[in-house]
Amino acid sequence: MNLIALLTDFGLQDGYPAVMKGVIWNIIPEINIVDLSHSIPPQNVRLGAFTLGNAYHYFPDGTIFVCVIDPGVGTSRRPIAAKIGKYTFIAPDNGLLSAPIMDAKKQAQTMEIMHLNKPGFWLPSPSYTFHGRDIFAPVAAHLAKNIPFSELGTAIIDPVCLDFPTPQPIPNGWQADILAVDGFGNLITNLTREHLQNGKTYVSLIGGEEIEGPVTTFGNKSPGELLTFFDSSNRFSICVVNGSAARALLAGPGAQLKVIQKDE
Amino acid sequence: MNLIALLTDFGLQDGYPAVMKGVIWNIIPEINIVDLSHSIPPQNVRLGAFTLGNAYHYFPDGTIFVCVIDPGVGTSRRPIAAKIGKYTFIAPDNGLLSAPIMDAKKQAQTMEIMHLNKPGFWLPSPSYTFHGRDIFAPVAAHLAKNIPFSELGTAIIDPVCLDFPTPQPIPNGWQADILAVDGFGNLITNLTREHLQNGKTYVSLIGGEEIEGPVTTFGNKSPGELLTFFDSSNRFSICVVNGSAARALLAGPGAQLKVIQKDE
Amino acid sequence: MNLIALLTDFGLQDGYPAVMKGVIWNIIPEINIVDLSHSIPPQNVRLGAFTLGNAYHYFPDGTIFVCVIDPGVGTSRRPIAAKIGKYTFIAPDNGLLSAPIMDAKKQAQTMEIMHLNKPGFWLPSPSYTFHGRDIFAPVAAHLAKNIPFSELGTAIIDPVCLDFPTPQPIPNGWQADILAVDGFGNLITNLTREHLQNGKTYVSLIGGEEIEGPVTTFGNKSPGELLTFFDSSNRFSICVVNGSAARALLAGPGAQLKVIQKDE
Repeated sequence: MNLIALLTDFGLQDGYPAVMKGVIWNIIPEINIVDLSHSIPPQNVRLGAFTLGNAYHYFPDGTIFVCVIDPGVGTSRRPIAAKIGKYTFIAPDNGLLSAPIMDAKKQAQTMEIMHLNKPGFWLPSPSYTFHGRDIFAPVAAHLAKNIPFSELGTAIIDPVCLDFPTPQPIPNGWQADILAVDGFGNLITNLTREHLQNGKTYVSLIGGEEIEGPVTTFGNKSPGELLTFFDSSNRFSICVVNGSAARALLAGPGAQLKVIQKDE
Repeated sequence: MNLIALLTDFGLQDGYPAVMKGVIWNIIPEINIVDLSHSIPPQNVRLGAFTLGNAYHYFPDGTIFVCVIDPGVGTSRRPIAAKIGKYTFIAPDNGLLSAPIMDAKKQAQTMEIMHLNKPGFWLPSPSYTFHGRDIFAPVAAHLAKNIPFSELGTAIIDPVCLDFPTPQPIPNGWQADILAVDGFGNLITNLTREHLQNGKTYVSLIGGEEIEGPVTTFGNKSPGELLTFFDSSNRFSICVVNGSAARALLAGPGAQLKVIQKDE
Repeated sequence: MNLIALLTDFGLQDGYPAVMKGVIWNIIPEINIVDLSHSIPPQNVRLGAFTLGNAYHYFPDGTIFVCVIDPGVGTSRRPIAAKIGKYTFIAPDNGLLSAPIMDAKKQAQTMEIMHLNKPGFWLPSPSYTFHGRDIFAPVAAHLAKNIPFSELGTAIIDPVCLDFPTPQPIPNGWQADILAVDGFGNLITNLTREHLQNGKTYVSLIGGEEIEGPVTTFGNKSPGELLTFFDSSNRFSICVVNGSAARALLAGPGAQLKVIQKDE
């Protein structure tokens, strides 16, 4: 299927995502373009990488992801494209593609990565500040128009990958890390279902609070209550019913917690 | 026409609406999907129902509406689909479909409602927290792909309907209710053109204020001025020119007002 | 290419842009519709005009732009359509189309402008408050469906144009004006690359600050630092790294600055 998905921190006011679409449709008319998100907080490469990682495997084979969260735009950071399994990803080389790259390594999947250094596939005279429009969008359009991946640039093997911490075992549980805060203020940890025993209750220690869980639904909880649950990507997460756990606990990416199995 | 419209409270940051689209396109490639809104305030089923009611009859015949404002996700609340006139609606059974259901009753239109209890039309192993992705989106896609409505589940006749209050007559006017606050802070009442005499002036009493109207345009009003008008769905509404009536009057859904015909 | 682009100040909560799409698809099914922006601050015709001016020339030939920022809706202001070069623009006659009209004048391009006064191309019984749905969207759809432009209304030659100030020369530089604040709080001036000598450093005097520049990238600047740069439309602009220059300088449209070439 012919589909391009856009992930940026451009926001929705100024029309920049629409301009990228205009550029794409000028090269390949009528291709289907979907907005993954344009509301990643400005320059938050880590949350962009996290959001991409949660979403990309739900898209049809052949989807091309154009990801532009690009604090280094105009510097010497490389524009890259990565062909991983059935998807292609186009982005600045700043770690934004960490999730699919790490997934591919874990699954011993082959990947090809290109340094996008062929201005013939860009708009003429690219600006210093909007490579989404001038480089990334036109490269995606040429790719969708069946330019072979290998012609987009020069192969590389050293893309930047973010260092996502992994949980450390402690007696009866884990020392874990907050990876991200989602749009609802939920704190998402690096623990998954695989780390915790099914059916057991755990106490999470963070910010002076002791939170029991995980619960399976919020249906019978009181507004304002702190609780833990597995989110829709199976990550152990902390939320406040009808509120923001990030605000309640003054916690965010980098914060740590202990998750201890409860005595029975 | 093949069109799916999405109405959720997922917000625009985390990419959840795009994931629903990915799931749909995996089942039925290239179908047209439109965002009705993803910015309903979290868990505000009532405002979601109201927004759907204002919008749905402007869409082409055959449109499938997928509505996910779902505080009870993961509990025993039923996922349902309703075939009403030329449209189909898919949602949790929590009152979100009240408007088309009440419209159908008013117009003595037939409707069919199904409890969506056939996991064969869902994603495998649905999560407890994201039925938009795991149940509602794939059911909509199968329906768009011409699975007959009657095969989606088991017929029911008792969908949840919200109790929207109706205006009560008082001498020279009405005791009315605020049904909703729109994104501009306008207060929307349950009075329509049918309740008020054309060409007459009415005084609305709310929050200690007396507001004359309705006016037909805002064109010659001063910023900050309170006024009443008929909104684009013909509902008698209170607004502040270039401001928020909800904030000016500290009023919202559930508040009441008196609307009295002015002496002449 | 068949494409309709929407630019409004309707916001994303209440579903108004989707209703416009429904109306369009009822008249011409399956046409591609793109959101240029719906998050222009309410009634900010000037910023809407500016946003349109930056974006429209990136869209495919034949794109129809439907622009609805319309503080005068329901008054006698005219609905208009303008055929300029390869594009068509539909809007209230309040200056929203100033950029393409001024561009056409500068390039001595022909244009045709129509007063949209033929209710046969509107929805029946248009409301006083939502001409986007009742007039502008259906006219765009009929145009996309190959109704000749000349049949849409009566030709006019006096569309409203906003008065954008032009920079005034002073010794060693310019007295310039802030034209707009973008969604990131960047202050965009009416100076372009043509006004400043390539490779020279300029000092911008505004709000008691002296800001050197332009820089070519933000890559090696400190958060909170004020700097000047050429934006992606080649406009000389003031930004705060990871912040809002509008807030830092308490400046906005109408503010002035001096831009003086630095001694070497």
